[in-house]
Amino acid sequence: MKKYQLMAPGPTPVPSEVLLAMAGPIIHHRTPQYDAVFVEVRAGLKRLFQTSAEVVPLACSGTGAMEAAVVNTLSAGDKVAVVRAGKFGDRWLDLARAYGLQVVDLSAPFGHTVEAARLAEALKAQPDVKAVLAQHSETSTGVLHDVRAYAAVTRQHDAILIVDAVSSLGIADLPMDAWNVDLVVSGSQKGLMLPPGVGFCALSEKAWRKTRSATLPKFYFNLADELKYVAKNEVRFTPAVSLMVGLREALRLLEAEGLPNVFKRHDRLARATRAGVEALGLELFAKATPSPALTAVVPPRGVDSEKIVAAYSQSHNITIAGGQGEMKGKLFRLGHMGYAAEFDVIAGLAGLEQVLADLGQPVDFGASVGAAQKIFAEKS
Amino acid sequence: MKKYQLMAPGPTPVPSEVLLAMAGPIIHHRTPQYDAVFVEVRAGLKRLFQTSAEVVPLACSGTGAMEAAVVNTLSAGDKVAVVRAGKFGDRWLDLARAYGLQVVDLSAPFGHTVEAARLAEALKAQPDVKAVLAQHSETSTGVLHDVRAYAAVTRQHDAILIVDAVSSLGIADLPMDAWNVDLVVSGSQKGLMLPPGVGFCALSEKAWRKTRSATLPKFYFNLADELKYVAKNEVRFTPAVSLMVGLREALRLLEAEGLPNVFKRHDRLARATRAGVEALGLELFAKATPSPALTAVVPPRGVDSEKIVAAYSQSHNITIAGGQGEMKGKLFRLGHMGYAAEFDVIAGLAGLEQVLADLGQPVDFGASVGAAQKIFAEKS
Repeated sequence: MKKYQLMAPGPTPVPSEVLLAMAGPIIHHRTPQYDAVFVEVRAGLKRLFQTSAEVVPLACSGTGAMEAAVVNTLSAGDKVAVVRAGKFGDRWLDLARAYGLQVVDLSAPFGHTVEAARLAEALKAQPDVKAVLAQHSETSTGVLHDVRAYAAVTRQHDAILIVDAVSSLGIADLPMDAWNVDLVVSGSQKGLMLPPGVGFCALSEKAWRKTRSATLPKFYFNLADELKYVAKNEVRFTPAVSLMVGLREALRLLEAEGLPNVFKRHDRLARATRAGVEALGLELFAKATPSPALTAVVPPRGVDSEKIVAAYSQSHNITIAGGQGEMKGKLFRLGHMGYAAEFDVIAGLAGLEQVLADLGQPVDFGASVGAAQKIFAEKS
Repeated sequence: MKKYQLMAPGPTPVPSEVLLAMAGPIIHHRTPQYDAVFVEVRAGLKRLFQTSAEVVPLACSGTGAMEAAVVNTLSAGDKVAVVRAGKFGDRWLDLARAYGLQVVDLSAPFGHTVEAARLAEALKAQPDVKAVLAQHSETSTGVLHDVRAYAAVTRQHDAILIVDAVSSLGIADLPMDAWNVDLVVSGSQKGLMLPPGVGFCALSEKAWRKTRSATLPKFYFNLADELKYVAKNEVRFTPAVSLMVGLREALRLLEAEGLPNVFKRHDRLARATRAGVEALGLELFAKATPSPALTAVVPPRGVDSEKIVAAYSQSHNITIAGGQGEMKGKLFRLGHMGYAAEFDVIAGLAGLEQVLADLGQPVDFGASVGAAQKIFAEKS
C-alpha cells in the first residue's frame, strides 16, 4: 500500500469535513438553507481577506477572477503596469493584451522579484497608469512579491493595485485594508482547502470607483452587478452550490485555527521544506523572498525535474508538480499549503530522499528530514 | 421526519454514486489520473451532445458558457437575432447588449414560443444577421422551443444557430450534428445530475470558422485556445476537478441507461406531472410545447405562487421554484429532470395536493397522483 498524498501547489488536499459537507444533498441557491450558508460565508471571507468590503465569489477558476478584476476596472487602451516574474505574471500580460490594454512591462527573470522601487519609478514616469497588476505568491516560481511595498507606492497615484493572491490567501498575511491593496483576487483550491471552481474578487472603495467608468465589455463577470446581489445576500447566477457549502466548512476550520496561527503554520512548513531541501544540497529556485505556499527546487545537475515528479508519483503515490512552460524540466515544486501539516512535509522530504537515491544521486538518508525536524522542534 | 426532496428546475439532485466520487481525495489536473478521467469525459460528452466535435468544458455556470458562445463567434456591432420568450431568452438579450451587438428582437410573451417562420422571415429580411440566439428548453416558463426548425431555417443562411441547452441536454433529444445546430451551450446542474459549476460549449465546423474572425475580446472563455488543450486531452486552466470526476460518474449512469431511455423517462415524468397538475384543475403556464425538464404551473386564482413554494418547503421539506422576475408570484415550477424518477413525481404531486389543501383550496385527494399513475401504467 502506498498512501496517496497530494503535495502539488494546488489543487491541494481537501479535509474530510469539507468533502463530507459537499457530499450532502444539493440545496437550491434561492432558499433559506442557502441564505444561511451565504451569510456565514460572506462574513468569513471578509475576515479571511482582512477587509470590510464585500468579497464577491464567482463560479470560475482563479484565472476567471483575474479577468473579472481587469474587465471591471479598466477600459480599452488604458495603460497598466504588469509586475511579472513567472507564469502567473505572464498571465496578467496575456490578459492585458487580450483586452487591448497598453502594458508597462516590469519584468524580472523567473525566480526573482520586481523591486518596489522599479514600480515607483514607473508610476512616476508614467502617471497615466491606471492599474498595477501583480502576484503576491508567484506559484510558478515559489517567490513571494512584496505586495505591501507595491501598495505603499501605488496609493500615491491614481492607479489601483490588483493582486493575484490565489496562492497566498489564507497562507501569507495579506491585510487588504491595512495595506491599501485595491483589488484582491483569489481562488478556492489553495489556502482555502477546497476543490477548484470558485474565484473571488474583493475591491476597495477606490477600486469600486474605477468600476463606474471602466468600459471593457463584461457580463458574466460584471462585479458591480454581482455586488447588488451579494450585498442583499442573494446570488445573481447559479453559484457552484456544493463548493459554497464546502467553503463554509473550510472557513470554519480556518477560524478555529485562527488566521495568525494559519500564517505561522505555513511559515514553519515552508522553512522546514527549504531546510530539508538544502540539507540535500539542492538549490532553491527562488532567488527572492520564498513563498510560504510552496517550495520550488532546482534539480541536481543533469537530472530532468520531470523525472523527479514521475518518480514521486510512480514509486510513492505522491503528486508534486514540475515546472511550467519554459521552466519544464528545470524545477520541481513541493506544495505545503492549505490542508498541510508537519508530517506531510516530513513525508514529502523522505520521499525526495528516496526519489533522488532511485535516480542514482548520492543521498545522506535522513538529512532532509532531520533538518526539517529541527525547525519543527523550535518553540513557536 | 420529513425527507428532503429537491424538485427545483436546477440544481437537481445528485446521485450518491456521483457525490461519493466527488468526495474522494482531490487529484491534480496534470496527472495520468486526471488524463484518464478526461479521456472518458470527452468521449461521453460527444455521445451526450450527439456530435463528433469536441465539447469544451469550462469552469463556470451555464451563463458563463452562454457568454463564451457569444464572445467567440461575434464582433462588436454584429447583428444577432434573439429568440426569446422567458428569462433565459432575456439573458441572451442582456449578453448581446453588454457586448455591443445589434439585436433583431424576436420575442413572444412568456409561456409562448417563437415560430420558426418568424425567424425565417427575419433572416430573409436581414441577411446580415450573424447568429441566432435561442433556448431549447426555457427554464423560466417550461416551454420547449422548436430548435430543429430554427436550425433548418438558419442553415440556409450565413448565420449560426447558438442554442442554450442548459435544461435540455440529457433531457430532450437534441442531436446537434443531425439537426445542424452550430453551437450548443449547457451546464452541469440539470440533466447531467451534477452540482453547478461546469459549463459546456460544443461547436460545429461552421461555428469554429466564425471564431477565426470574431473580435470580441476574451481570455478566460477563449474557446479556440481551450480547444488546443482539449484536443490534446490537456487543460488550459485549473478545471473544477471534483466536478469533472463527478461528471465521469454521471456520464456512466446516463450511458448505462441509454440516451433514448433517458429521453423517454423525462417525457413520461413530464407527461405524468402535467396530467397530475391538470387533474387538480390547475393550468399549465406553457402555452406552447412543454419542456420535459420541468412543469410551470399557474397557481389557483387568488393564490400567490410564492406561498405554494413556501408551503412545499416548510410543511414538506420539498424544494420547488417560483417565478423569476416579473413572473414572481404568478407561477410555480416543478422540476423532473436529471436524477428524477416516477415516485419523485408522485411525491411532488402528493405534496401539491397537501399544499393546496393547506392553503384552503378544494382538493380531490389522490386525483393528481391517480392521473400520473395512469401515465406510468402505460407500456413504454
